[in-house]
Amino acid sequence: MIGKTIEELSVGQSARFSKTISESDVYGFAGITGDFNPAHVDEAYAQNTFFKNRIAHGMLTASFISTIIGTMLPGPGSVYMRQEVRFLAPVKIGDTITAVAEVAELLMEKKRVRLKTYCLNQGGTKVVDGEALVSTPRASR
Amino acid sequence: MIGKTIEELSVGQSARFSKTISESDVYGFAGITGDFNPAHVDEAYAQNTFFKNRIAHGMLTASFISTIIGTMLPGPGSVYMRQEVRFLAPVKIGDTITAVAEVAELLMEKKRVRLKTYCLNQGGTKVVDGEALVSTPRASR
Amino acid sequence: MIGKTIEELSVGQSARFSKTISESDVYGFAGITGDFNPAHVDEAYAQNTFFKNRIAHGMLTASFISTIIGTMLPGPGSVYMRQEVRFLAPVKIGDTITAVAEVAELLMEKKRVRLKTYCLNQGGTKVVDGEALVSTPRASR
Amino acid sequence: MIGKTIEELSVGQSARFSKTISESDVYGFAGITGDFNPAHVDEAYAQNTFFKNRIAHGMLTASFISTIIGTMLPGPGSVYMRQEVRFLAPVKIGDTITAVAEVAELLMEKKRVRLKTYCLNQGGTKVVDGEALVSTPRASR
Repeated sequence: MIGKTIEELSVGQSARFSKTISESDVYGFAGITGDFNPAHVDEAYAQNTFFKNRIAHGMLTASFISTIIGTMLPGPGSVYMRQEVRFLAPVKIGDTITAVAEVAELLMEKKRVRLKTYCLNQGGTKVVDGEALVSTPRASR
Repeated sequence: MIGKTIEELSVGQSARFSKTISESDVYGFAGITGDFNPAHVDEAYAQNTFFKNRIAHGMLTASFISTIIGTMLPGPGSVYMRQEVRFLAPVKIGDTITAVAEVAELLMEKKRVRLKTYCLNQGGTKVVDGEALVSTPRASR
Repeated sequence: MIGKTIEELSVGQSARFSKTISESDVYGFAGITGDFNPAHVDEAYAQNTFFKNRIAHGMLTASFISTIIGTMLPGPGSVYMRQEVRFLAPVKIGDTITAVAEVAELLMEKKRVRLKTYCLNQGGTKVVDGEALVSTPRASR
Repeated sequence: MIGKTIEELSVGQSARFSKTISESDVYGFAGITGDFNPAHVDEAYAQNTFFKNRIAHGMLTASFISTIIGTMLPGPGSVYMRQEVRFLAPVKIGDTITAVAEVAELLMEKKRVRLKTYCLNQGGTKVVDGEALVSTPRASR
C-alpha cells in the first residue's frame, strides 16, 4: 500500500475524482465541522441569497483534491504539506464535481511534487482553482 | 442573520472554534470525500507509519477555519474567496483542535478582509497555518 | 404496523429501551442539531469542568423516551403531544442509559395516555425524570 | 469559552437557530436514538397516514432549543435543568425550522433563567411550544 515515489511521477501526469454533492454530504460536512452557515443548511434563507439555493461548503469541494493526493497521485505515503485554493464559483447541492490534480513540478532533491489542482462542475465551469505541495511516498516509510 | 460588515471589523479582531477530533469525525470525513488513505482509516497500516496512529485528514482540521469564517468572523453573508493552508504537524484521533482566525488587513474599497488563520492542538502546537481572503457580508445581500 | 390502542393499555404497564451512549452518538447528535457546546465536543475544555469529561446532550438522553413512545408504548400511530423533562444528573460518554415509560393515567374520552417517563444510568441513578402526553393509535389511522 | 452570566441577561433578550430538516437528519436521529417509528423512516407507510409524508421526530425539532441554550443563550457553562415541550404541528422532511429562546424571567438568587422556547416552520406556524429552566454560566465553573 504505497503510492507513487518521485521516480514514478512525471510532469503532466494527472488524476481525477468525481462525485455528485448530495444534501447528506453537505449536512454531514456541517455536522463534522460545525459550519452551520445558513447558506449551507437553511433553504428558506438560501432562497433569498444571490445563489438562490443551499450551496456546498467550499472546503468540502476542495477536499476532493486531498482525496486524489491521498489515494491516487501520489497516493498512500504522501505527506500533504501545503494547499492553496481559490473559490471561483458556488457549488449547489446536486452538482457533480470533478477534482483534478496534475503534476506541475518535481522537486527531486527534497522529493516533493508541486501539483496544479482544480475542480470543475458538470458544466465544465472551474469552481475551485489552486495548487498543492506534497512530500512523495518513499519505500522506507 | 447577517455577519459582520467591513465597518464592524477591525485589525486584530479574532474568533476561535474548538473540537476534539473523534474517530467518527475522521470516518465521516472519509465517507463524504472518498479519501480512504490508509493513514486515516487503517489502524494496522498506521501503526507501521512514522505517526504510529491513524491521523485526521489535514483538510478536516483546516475546515474548522471555514467554520469560523462562515459562522463567526465575518459570519453569514461572507463569500469565501481564497484559503491557503500549510500542514505543519499531524493531528491524531482524540486531539483537541482550536482553530483561530484573526483579522490581518481590511481592504475597504473591495470590502474584503484578509485573515491570519491557524489551528493549534491541545498542547499548543501549531498544526495548520495559513491565510484566508473573504468578501465581507453586506446588508443588501 | 399499529401500536397499542387505548383499550390495550392499562395503568402500570411499562416499556424500556437501553443503549450505551457512544462518542459517535454525541458527535452525531451535535452534527444534526448544531449543538457544539464544548461540554459535548471539546475534551480539553471538559476536563476543566465540574463533570471532568465530555457529557451527552440532555436532549439525546431524553430522546430515548420518544423511542419507547414511537416504537413500543403505545407505538406506531401515536401522536406525541407533550413531553416534560428534568435533567437531574450528567450522562458521560460510555454511560449506559435505560429509558422507561410507564402508563400513569388513561384519558379514555380523548383517547390519550399520560406516561411517567424517566432515564437511569448503569448505576441506577435517575438522570432524567418527566412526563409525557400521547394521543393513542387508532385502527382507522 | 463562557456564555452569558445572569448579570448579562435581561428579560426579552432572545436568540434563534435555523435549519432545513433533511432526510439525512431524520435518518441520523433515528440511528442514534433507535426511534424507527415508520412515520419517520417508512415512506410507503407514511403516505397512508394523515400527514401523507415522513415527518421528523418531535424531539429532533425540540433539540434545536437545546442548541440555542448550549451555544448562544446563555451558552457554554449553562446547566440545562428542565425543558417542557408541546408538539403542535408535524414537521416534514424539507421544512425549515427556526427555534427561538427568549428570556422570560431571571431568578437572581439561584442564578437561573426561565426561557420561553418555541419553534416555527418556514410558513410561520408554531410547531413546538414550551419553556426551559437553565442554571446560568458562572466565571468560576
